Amino acid sequence: MQLPPSLRRNLPILDWATDYNRGTLTNDMLAAVIVTIMLIPQSLAYALLAGLPAEMGLYASILPLVAYAIFGTSRALAVGPVAVVSLMTAAAVGNLALQGTAEYALAAITLAFMSGAILLVMGIFRLGFLANFLSHPVIAGFITASGILIATSQLKHIAGVEAHGHNMVELLTSLAAHLADLNPITAVIGISTVAFLFWVRKGMKPLLLSLGLPPRLADTLTKAGPVFAVAATTLATWGFDLGARGVAIVGDVPKGLPPFSLPSFSPDLWGALFMSALLISIIGFVESVSVAQTLAIKKRQRIVPDQELIGLGTSNIAAALSGGYPVTGGFARSVVNYDAGAETPAAGAFTAIGILLAALFLTPLLFFLPKATLAATIIVAVLSLVDLSILRSTWNYSRVDFAAVATTIALTLLMGVEIGVSAGVILSILLFLYKTSRPHVAEVGLVPGTQHFRNILRHEVETHPEVVTLRIDESLYFANARFLEDYIYDRIACEEPIEHIVLLCSAVNEIDMSALESLEQINHRLQDLNIKLHLSEVKGPVMDKLKRSHLLDALSGEVFLSHYDAVCALTNHAEACDQQQSGDAAE
Amino acid sequence: MQLPPSLRRNLPILDWATDYNRGTLTNDMLAAVIVTIMLIPQSLAYALLAGLPAEMGLYASILPLVAYAIFGTSRALAVGPVAVVSLMTAAAVGNLALQGTAEYALAAITLAFMSGAILLVMGIFRLGFLANFLSHPVIAGFITASGILIATSQLKHIAGVEAHGHNMVELLTSLAAHLADLNPITAVIGISTVAFLFWVRKGMKPLLLSLGLPPRLADTLTKAGPVFAVAATTLATWGFDLGARGVAIVGDVPKGLPPFSLPSFSPDLWGALFMSALLISIIGFVESVSVAQTLAIKKRQRIVPDQELIGLGTSNIAAALSGGYPVTGGFARSVVNYDAGAETPAAGAFTAIGILLAALFLTPLLFFLPKATLAATIIVAVLSLVDLSILRSTWNYSRVDFAAVATTIALTLLMGVEIGVSAGVILSILLFLYKTSRPHVAEVGLVPGTQHFRNILRHEVETHPEVVTLRIDESLYFANARFLEDYIYDRIACEEPIEHIVLLCSAVNEIDMSALESLEQINHRLQDLNIKLHLSEVKGPVMDKLKRSHLLDALSGEVFLSHYDAVCALTNHAEACDQQQSGDAAE
Repeated sequence: MQLPPSLRRNLPILDWATDYNRGTLTNDMLAAVIVTIMLIPQSLAYALLAGLPAEMGLYASILPLVAYAIFGTSRALAVGPVAVVSLMTAAAVGNLALQGTAEYALAAITLAFMSGAILLVMGIFRLGFLANFLSHPVIAGFITASGILIATSQLKHIAGVEAHGHNMVELLTSLAAHLADLNPITAVIGISTVAFLFWVRKGMKPLLLSLGLPPRLADTLTKAGPVFAVAATTLATWGFDLGARGVAIVGDVPKGLPPFSLPSFSPDLWGALFMSALLISIIGFVESVSVAQTLAIKKRQRIVPDQELIGLGTSNIAAALSGGYPVTGGFARSVVNYDAGAETPAAGAFTAIGILLAALFLTPLLFFLPKATLAATIIVAVLSLVDLSILRSTWNYSRVDFAAVATTIALTLLMGVEIGVSAGVILSILLFLYKTSRPHVAEVGLVPGTQHFRNILRHEVETHPEVVTLRIDESLYFANARFLEDYIYDRIACEEPIEHIVLLCSAVNEIDMSALESLEQINHRLQDLNIKLHLSEVKGPVMDKLKRSHLLDALSGEVFLSHYDAVCALTNHAEACDQQQSGDAAE
Repeated sequence: MQLPPSLRRNLPILDWATDYNRGTLTNDMLAAVIVTIMLIPQSLAYALLAGLPAEMGLYASILPLVAYAIFGTSRALAVGPVAVVSLMTAAAVGNLALQGTAEYALAAITLAFMSGAILLVMGIFRLGFLANFLSHPVIAGFITASGILIATSQLKHIAGVEAHGHNMVELLTSLAAHLADLNPITAVIGISTVAFLFWVRKGMKPLLLSLGLPPRLADTLTKAGPVFAVAATTLATWGFDLGARGVAIVGDVPKGLPPFSLPSFSPDLWGALFMSALLISIIGFVESVSVAQTLAIKKRQRIVPDQELIGLGTSNIAAALSGGYPVTGGFARSVVNYDAGAETPAAGAFTAIGILLAALFLTPLLFFLPKATLAATIIVAVLSLVDLSILRSTWNYSRVDFAAVATTIALTLLMGVEIGVSAGVILSILLFLYKTSRPHVAEVGLVPGTQHFRNILRHEVETHPEVVTLRIDESLYFANARFLEDYIYDRIACEEPIEHIVLLCSAVNEIDMSALESLEQINHRLQDLNIKLHLSEVKGPVMDKLKRSHLLDALSGEVFLSHYDAVCALTNHAEACDQQQSGDAAE
């Protein structure tokens, strides 16, 4: 059956569902089983991190996965609750309502709905490029700082004390104030689980391999490490009745299908959550697309970023309608999904069925699960996100990028996630604008024996006092138009007998109206001083625009195809050039 | 006497005061007389426009001129109250207090002080480049829309009715509501003065010349047109006692020295005025510097923008301390000053003495001056600022610039000056970022018989299916890093036997950390597909940075000096290239 291309584009499911066969089914189901095992403790833990009831983590891992399977373009992306978005949810909602209240859960559901709506609108209007304004160093700094914040926020569960805060200062002060209430049994469970999980990451797979297990099984058992920890600590808590001795447990988790839920439509709540929803959408989208792209390229598949916005948008709306909270594509679980052999988004739908079964039948088993165990899984997961080497690498490569990343890390830690990432984005843009507003301009001369021109300050080159030739290493636009004027007026405020100024435009990708007017001014003012202004190597698209202006009519000099032509024509060495050129032509 | 250079730089007066002689003195004094005659009615009129007592216009034209003479770098700039800044003052202060109250005047004085402080801080920290983010079309649109707003705001004085408002809708509604109160005598004075002043501009000078007057005298008399109008209407109002018949007059203007005044230091007032003060500072600075530069270049003099900030900053602080309001360099009066032969800033100081004499002795003569006359001088002055041709020229040249200018004009007219100019600046920046985030990328091929490479879509060029060569027409930075990745992944998601991708970097002026990581990703992913990534014509400064990164070590391909070298080395036509190159070398 031949489907209309517009339908295929908007419903990526049609791309793969029509070719679905038994082999794909087997691979997808196997991957789904492994991801389900990994996702159950993660979902519970991230809901806890977001300050929500544990079951909301499960609900956020059912319908959203189905929605993504229909509308998403990645074959291997696994969506659901993730650490950074859970932390951002806690920060956004924590300002508005107390944890544990119905308002808190409703605000989280509303946040998911708004975030979904924002992603959908961005997808429909093809605004995916907005995400590009999050620079890599800002993202890296933000993720690192968030990882530190998340790990710190979980220490209260490990210690078994009350503590709150959305930044390091608040968290550490609050922890210190409550440290006297430390519950030793909880601390033993928490610390030993952290130690066990770190060992699982490093030491378990080699051990299993040395015991003669096949690599694939060893791998799967390693991925199931958190499940062992959950089972062992739950059993211990039940067996020794540790709940009665002060160990905080998950308690009653409702059994059954995800409830149908509706977001609040209170304008006040929407107003209060809008910036948070926007940040969550953009950060979730950036993370998700970069994971999807990493996996797609390996099989020469394509990710369509604007369609990904639709996929993630519907996922979040599905989360809002089924008692969940904001979701996005997670890195670790997508890699697991891919490695386990998932071939189509159907693997996500099968994972949803797995989590649904857990919600229907497993929740009573979670009653005695210690919160410290979940906190331990979070700490081990997020510490792998922490990578301060970005500070060193940006310092070595570019101080501008270093400033952006250092600001993002410092402000995220000290002021919280929202201010941190916003400041990073704004600072990157300001620094970029600052850089382009002071472009590199090189006075160039001819490298002897060639047709190449180089900076007179760096190379031994031929120059002529009456011809000043300048290479401008930036597009000319409003922010640097005056800079160029100043540069040229400064250059001619001297006693040299300057007759010509040639601007070498090979790196000028754009001349906007402000720069055009500056060039007209420069031309006009130079004319008053009997200096001619010339251009050389103007690019096609720029020349097309200049032809629609008055500059070329008014220009006192000429536009030369190559800079070499310009210098030959304007100096007394014209004969020599002609000779060399005719030599070239004769060749 | 040899002065230390740092002192000369910070006190430009030392540059010219040491060479001052009798000839310069005569020229400066003559210019000062002409500017004084022009400035008296202007100062009164602009104070009226700002909603302030007439004498504050005079006070703003005394000490500020002396301060600029000491700290400013332009030899011909004439500072004082100007139309656009007066309108902005009215808009800023009008929101806070009622016209005619002491709070209103105090707020205007505070605004001058804050604006002066902002300019000084910008000067000390060399932040003059910030003004560059006001693009030419935004300024042009803003000035035009302000001119229309100012002229409309003065119609109430011409009609002799009450009307208020800070945008066209408010002004026209208010005028329409009060039109029944129109005072016919006032309207006759207003309309005939407008007609007379327009005639002075167009018809008076030719008439005087045809009567045999020397050109210079004819010119001076023409400039004094507003003074004739002031004298004639004042006399008529006095002679026929028109004040008693409903013609609004200036009334009692205090006689004497400018008072010593202090700004308010109320944090609330500073908070309320800060954005207005910032906008006034930047717009005043941009206007002033562009006037100063126009005049300086004619004599090959230099303007130092950062020192101009100091000059204008001290002028505004001087205005605040002597009962004035925000001032800046005015276009019309500076041109008059220059044409009249002013050689040094001392001309400004002499003008200040002229205005001081007026404040001491002439104010009683202004009692019967009709406000309609002042409104007429404003209308004629500002209508010369209105130039809607910027809409047509930007439309023809660049739709992006058109969008910025149209938004600025529309919002200034409909929402007032502050929103209008802010929206223009923000939109220009967003559009620039959008443009650079989607750079022009051309797939290029060899123009037969040359070493030039051109776009395969525009030209008949030689290509090789196994070597894809891309020219990137933009610096690579965070906003377009992902765009390049997407572009390349899309390009290789095909069935062609691609072996090499060469990026031609002649127009890449910068590779930031995000773009570097994108290149590393591209390199890595292409390697998985057995495609080699090469770079060619990388600029010196960019190469310097790349050498500090890991990219060059990891790069699967090479960095070629010229794109021609790259294509020769990578295709099977290498022998032909070698031949041609050795031919070149032998030449």
